[in-house]
Amino acid sequence: MKRVRLTVAYDGTNYCGWQIQANGNTVQAELNRHLSQLLQEEIMTIGASRTDAGVHALGNVAVFDTNARMPGEKISYALNQRLPEDIRIQCSEEVAADFHPRYCESEKTYEYRILNRRFPLPTERFYSYFYHYNLDLEKMREGAAYLIGEHDFASFCGAGAQVKTTVRTVTGIDIAKESDIVTIRVTGKGFLYNMVRIITGTLIEIGGGMYLPVRMKDILEAGDRSAAGPTAPACGLTLIGIRFIGE
Amino acid sequence: MKRVRLTVAYDGTNYCGWQIQANGNTVQAELNRHLSQLLQEEIMTIGASRTDAGVHALGNVAVFDTNARMPGEKISYALNQRLPEDIRIQCSEEVAADFHPRYCESEKTYEYRILNRRFPLPTERFYSYFYHYNLDLEKMREGAAYLIGEHDFASFCGAGAQVKTTVRTVTGIDIAKESDIVTIRVTGKGFLYNMVRIITGTLIEIGGGMYLPVRMKDILEAGDRSAAGPTAPACGLTLIGIRFIGE
Repeated sequence: MKRVRLTVAYDGTNYCGWQIQANGNTVQAELNRHLSQLLQEEIMTIGASRTDAGVHALGNVAVFDTNARMPGEKISYALNQRLPEDIRIQCSEEVAADFHPRYCESEKTYEYRILNRRFPLPTERFYSYFYHYNLDLEKMREGAAYLIGEHDFASFCGAGAQVKTTVRTVTGIDIAKESDIVTIRVTGKGFLYNMVRIITGTLIEIGGGMYLPVRMKDILEAGDRSAAGPTAPACGLTLIGIRFIGE
Repeated sequence: MKRVRLTVAYDGTNYCGWQIQANGNTVQAELNRHLSQLLQEEIMTIGASRTDAGVHALGNVAVFDTNARMPGEKISYALNQRLPEDIRIQCSEEVAADFHPRYCESEKTYEYRILNRRFPLPTERFYSYFYHYNLDLEKMREGAAYLIGEHDFASFCGAGAQVKTTVRTVTGIDIAKESDIVTIRVTGKGFLYNMVRIITGTLIEIGGGMYLPVRMKDILEAGDRSAAGPTAPACGLTLIGIRFIGE
């Protein structure tokens, strides 16, 4: 028996998110099905991040256990031959039997892309959120600074989440603009449900001049979802990667 | 009667190219149909560049004549409300009655994107060509240099083209790499059928080490399509924009 770790990239447009579910196709269901066919035994993957419907990934992580003889590093090639073209394994490798993608300490990086121009660009429509009005990046950076560190992020937690604590640590938020794409790159040790999308929606309110940057502090202290801005659409969000601390 | 010029962006994935045709949907057919409905008269657009099936555009140009009262600059907003989301007008403006997007002297810029890494990325699959092997950009630049200027590009003309002359002027080829995307940006005064895709296919042969850079000179001199490399796939190509000289 060995444990294999996959680094998985996907276009989330046509999936009901990562997590396997009764209705609708998911990335995890595709992986389980094709791995089971490839390795000729029933495979159940465990994902590091249960991304929402429509959210993309360059480097989500999944592990599974198998008795198959195929070397771990060969599985990427064989599995990519079977997977639909909107899922591609970037790396497969054998890891320690006690490695668990959710219980091992890690840092995740998400990137939110905003297309900020007069008219939408069709080629960007699945991978960014179109925002027409001018965004003041300096104000967005000023607002984002209040979120760095360990805080109770209850105001940035979508309804329906079942968690013991809403305290999380955000280690960095970088906001940059290249041509007409504004990117918000958020790094942290675990995130609440919809957290990056609510942070983004709130930063857009600040960048667009609807909120003053200092309001971010009040929103954080309110501990109430209704204090924050809207949840930015899923299509703009990509899980860039996960770094496992101590590796 | 006035003449209106549209700057048109589109995702070419689901179209049989620009030019109207009997079988299959085209960008021009969508524009004609929605403009006719909007302006309540039969509208026939003329395009600057008849891009192939699967090729994208950020700034193709089309003109049409109309008796409608709607001011030219308002048409972009009204038309975007009707168009499918894979076509978006970027600008509409009234131009001189003798402006013609194919007969007025112009310079076009195309960009070809190559995803150059170990495994494909699903989110790039419609907007780049995946190439696994290492590309030597210096060699590609050396090969590209032979193409700059006025030459007979018969070796870079796809079969089925009906043209009086295969002499064209390429004013610039810039090759750059950012992260794992190699971009080939070609600017010229008019292009032959498939010319940028054949140039790209040949540059990939050079970058991958199959051809020496100096072979580009021999290929150009051969005046024969079979001397050049393969035609790179349509999905990697985008018409960036058209500059009308003298404007």
